[in-house]
Amino acid sequence: MTQAIILIHCPDRKGLVAAITTFVKEAQANIIYLDQHVDRETDTFFMRLVCAFDTATELIRFRESFQTKMANPYDLSWQLFDHNETSRIALLVSKYDHCLYDLLGRHATGELRGAISLIISNHPDLSGVAKQFDIPFFHIPVNKETKKEAETKQLELLQKHEIDLIVLARYMQIISADFVAHYPNKIINIHHSFLPAFVGAKPYHAAFDRGVKIIGATSHYVTSDLDEGPIIEQETVRVSHIHGVQDFIMKGRDLEKIVLARAVKAHLDHKILVYGNKTIIFS
Amino acid sequence: MTQAIILIHCPDRKGLVAAITTFVKEAQANIIYLDQHVDRETDTFFMRLVCAFDTATELIRFRESFQTKMANPYDLSWQLFDHNETSRIALLVSKYDHCLYDLLGRHATGELRGAISLIISNHPDLSGVAKQFDIPFFHIPVNKETKKEAETKQLELLQKHEIDLIVLARYMQIISADFVAHYPNKIINIHHSFLPAFVGAKPYHAAFDRGVKIIGATSHYVTSDLDEGPIIEQETVRVSHIHGVQDFIMKGRDLEKIVLARAVKAHLDHKILVYGNKTIIFS
Amino acid sequence: MTQAIILIHCPDRKGLVAAITTFVKEAQANIIYLDQHVDRETDTFFMRLVCAFDTATELIRFRESFQTKMANPYDLSWQLFDHNETSRIALLVSKYDHCLYDLLGRHATGELRGAISLIISNHPDLSGVAKQFDIPFFHIPVNKETKKEAETKQLELLQKHEIDLIVLARYMQIISADFVAHYPNKIINIHHSFLPAFVGAKPYHAAFDRGVKIIGATSHYVTSDLDEGPIIEQETVRVSHIHGVQDFIMKGRDLEKIVLARAVKAHLDHKILVYGNKTIIFS
Amino acid sequence: MTQAIILIHCPDRKGLVAAITTFVKEAQANIIYLDQHVDRETDTFFMRLVCAFDTATELIRFRESFQTKMANPYDLSWQLFDHNETSRIALLVSKYDHCLYDLLGRHATGELRGAISLIISNHPDLSGVAKQFDIPFFHIPVNKETKKEAETKQLELLQKHEIDLIVLARYMQIISADFVAHYPNKIINIHHSFLPAFVGAKPYHAAFDRGVKIIGATSHYVTSDLDEGPIIEQETVRVSHIHGVQDFIMKGRDLEKIVLARAVKAHLDHKILVYGNKTIIFS
Repeated sequence: MTQAIILIHCPDRKGLVAAITTFVKEAQANIIYLDQHVDRETDTFFMRLVCAFDTATELIRFRESFQTKMANPYDLSWQLFDHNETSRIALLVSKYDHCLYDLLGRHATGELRGAISLIISNHPDLSGVAKQFDIPFFHIPVNKETKKEAETKQLELLQKHEIDLIVLARYMQIISADFVAHYPNKIINIHHSFLPAFVGAKPYHAAFDRGVKIIGATSHYVTSDLDEGPIIEQETVRVSHIHGVQDFIMKGRDLEKIVLARAVKAHLDHKILVYGNKTIIFS
Repeated sequence: MTQAIILIHCPDRKGLVAAITTFVKEAQANIIYLDQHVDRETDTFFMRLVCAFDTATELIRFRESFQTKMANPYDLSWQLFDHNETSRIALLVSKYDHCLYDLLGRHATGELRGAISLIISNHPDLSGVAKQFDIPFFHIPVNKETKKEAETKQLELLQKHEIDLIVLARYMQIISADFVAHYPNKIINIHHSFLPAFVGAKPYHAAFDRGVKIIGATSHYVTSDLDEGPIIEQETVRVSHIHGVQDFIMKGRDLEKIVLARAVKAHLDHKILVYGNKTIIFS
Repeated sequence: MTQAIILIHCPDRKGLVAAITTFVKEAQANIIYLDQHVDRETDTFFMRLVCAFDTATELIRFRESFQTKMANPYDLSWQLFDHNETSRIALLVSKYDHCLYDLLGRHATGELRGAISLIISNHPDLSGVAKQFDIPFFHIPVNKETKKEAETKQLELLQKHEIDLIVLARYMQIISADFVAHYPNKIINIHHSFLPAFVGAKPYHAAFDRGVKIIGATSHYVTSDLDEGPIIEQETVRVSHIHGVQDFIMKGRDLEKIVLARAVKAHLDHKILVYGNKTIIFS
Repeated sequence: MTQAIILIHCPDRKGLVAAITTFVKEAQANIIYLDQHVDRETDTFFMRLVCAFDTATELIRFRESFQTKMANPYDLSWQLFDHNETSRIALLVSKYDHCLYDLLGRHATGELRGAISLIISNHPDLSGVAKQFDIPFFHIPVNKETKKEAETKQLELLQKHEIDLIVLARYMQIISADFVAHYPNKIINIHHSFLPAFVGAKPYHAAFDRGVKIIGATSHYVTSDLDEGPIIEQETVRVSHIHGVQDFIMKGRDLEKIVLARAVKAHLDHKILVYGNKTIIFS
């Protein structure tokens, strides 16, 4: 048995679910999961389907005919993922190690549907952690002068390793628009605040100064606008006057780890559809 | 335009979504919302559909043909609710007034799709609150000897007022199995603990004695097994050693209000399907 | 027996707790509750004490001698509240009634240590609610031209009723700096976002547009800077792509009610100390 | 400068805070942190103090005189911890590795005030993880026949390594009362449910069967009563009908990691006082 995950979006119209599910039925596939959503503001239809096929051949045939028989007549944008093909992941880090440890631990535990293929850092500090988990580590220093050159090296590495997903696990460098253009909706960042509150640097300090009673973390796809990309996941935790900035940072770590891990998982499970500057996260 | 909400469950089989949505399409209806779920343990299919019909006649025709053309061949259990027909609600209370105030406030604000038609209490204390909100209030005392007789009076009132939903808003009497049998999955209770922890009386005292760090509240349909009915909604809140039993009770009130209100809303919006001793809560 | 709540803040120094608690002991009072906090950034000491006195006379004597024997030598800023004297509260509202119903319900239930003495609104719509709960209602229309005049009328009413606390229960007018100056740290507002995200008008719309996964509400003291006053309490709740702006508003209501009620309670229980633009909320 | 953490509990009486803080002042120490709590049911007084001494000698003198000058006259039970002396930790594991990875990651990151000195397991499976982090690993098989013998070996190891804290990081064996008696309030377990709901084995399965809408995890000190020891920390997360048992387990992992880590941190920071079957967790 083979499974496929299909993500669809298109202008809404009558009979879409019937048309799609009838097509699946006639392809002899079984619907394992179906979720759909209509955005009433833009009249856009979104669907996530998981279908089981008896043989790999049937899946191939389905994929081949979907464009002409469904996507063209119904104006569908679609992606199909073979459940057996897993993603290849690159982690970009700087000096903070908590998200790195967390993702590597989850990877080792088997929580992630994907392979962490390499770690790239602008500092050498975390090479030891990479070694602990036996993942190739590449140190590519970045400064104002070398930034362009460094990104070129990064892109070469990423392409050579056929990377599908880039995770910025507290990577403390701004990614250029050029770089982002190579991986649209394929770079996930963790920002250590409840966006859009406290964009930019030192958000825990800013939160402390404002006297908030709750802090948060936000994972989002990276776009050319810093901290403005589509939000994937957020989580919050209470703080109080007894907590100083260091306590905010300490409490925030656990948020960052969980929020980033949830976003990475959702991406690897093909549960995310990006439209405009928002995400649909299927359950 | 008329809308209908359709709840379906049946043994799972290939092509169900296609068959149902095709039937909707051919009835000239538009799918506003569709959510489906398959329980893999029992291979049971669940669906909630909201369909828009151009005319009331089309809705009537749909309803008439659904049994023979869909339910019979596909072995569907189904309910259809006309969106224009709202429920009639009875509140049963004793002496605590916080849930009563909350529900009456929401009712007055227009949050609930339904009409609170009457309030029944085993004590006279809350008649003033009923009067404030201009809802008929019936005092039916209950004690061991008069219980059966009291329930008979209650049932008469409920039937006379054509009640669809009974909400036990901190009603401190156990409902007999006989009574429950008249309103299966139509009586919602709020229990002031995180069920199944602390069943029975005085759950806040029990939680305090056990030294828990989180307390909760649970709304559930009432069955003949006390505190064992299908859970609809739960919520929790932190407590600590500084909180005494009275603080637990105070903090718990807000939980009770919210959890009960959410359950009542989900019921009135026909978002709940009960199967076995569990609920499917469509979003 | 009489109780007093004492709030103290001062520059930190060795021996403060010893000095204060020894003074309490020598006054024959019993410490019911003591919490203290030192802000390490500004080296400021904060304390909340609840003391029990055998007689009212002892409390009076304590109060009289505290300034000369403790406050002067130790440079203490202090407030003392007799537990028997409760606050007088004014609610300011516009057209939204959910916070109003919630506060009036809590008041009626006996949750609040204080009396809601009057309701002022710039619209006549909610006079019926005031009547339901038998609270005097004053309709003072506000527009650009009449704003100053309207505030004068409001201030007269507030002073006449000897109001200690003003609660803006979704009052949709900006309060002038002049007005605020009459009630420093005595005006509590509820803002329907997780401040500092989404300041200004229509925060739910802004949150929806940004695609956040969590929404919040914030209660704060009103200062002359809009939405910038010291934060008292915040709470958040999850949303997802299935929720439209109307769902955000609906879900936000429950946040607003709870967050505002918690802030009002903390104020009435004299658990809040404001310093700089932050709050200490004693537990 | 040297710091000491002092935990005190005793029968409540007038003047306790004054007496203790005056004693600290006269010892030339500075109070960095003070929190106290009185349990009104049992009239018991609890205090946590952090004091700074200019020299190590002053700390030693303080410790020596505290028993005779404070503890004896005021009937205090007390513990004093030198902030420079950190704890030695043993992890007991079976086959699940997520809590192990989490604690080792936190340890490596420097989050824990203590040293993980060894790992003991009844299975050989996780020896590789221990090796990754360069921690001694001891495989001590346990079955019904060898249980007593195995515990003897464990105790020898623990004593040889001068272990202060034993963390059961999903260790799937019941600890005997004999063993527990060697480490009272020094063995922390993580139970994968919101205790007291779902005691015993397979709590996620039980939670799934009951149809709860929220699952939880609980860390507690181990006593001779299984799952009945004093609760240290709890956390919860939402589930719904779409989640199967495997999803409960997956979601529960993150709870277990966080709840166990918080409990271990609180213990290592000497923030926990156990009395009766409850804990005081100072903030």
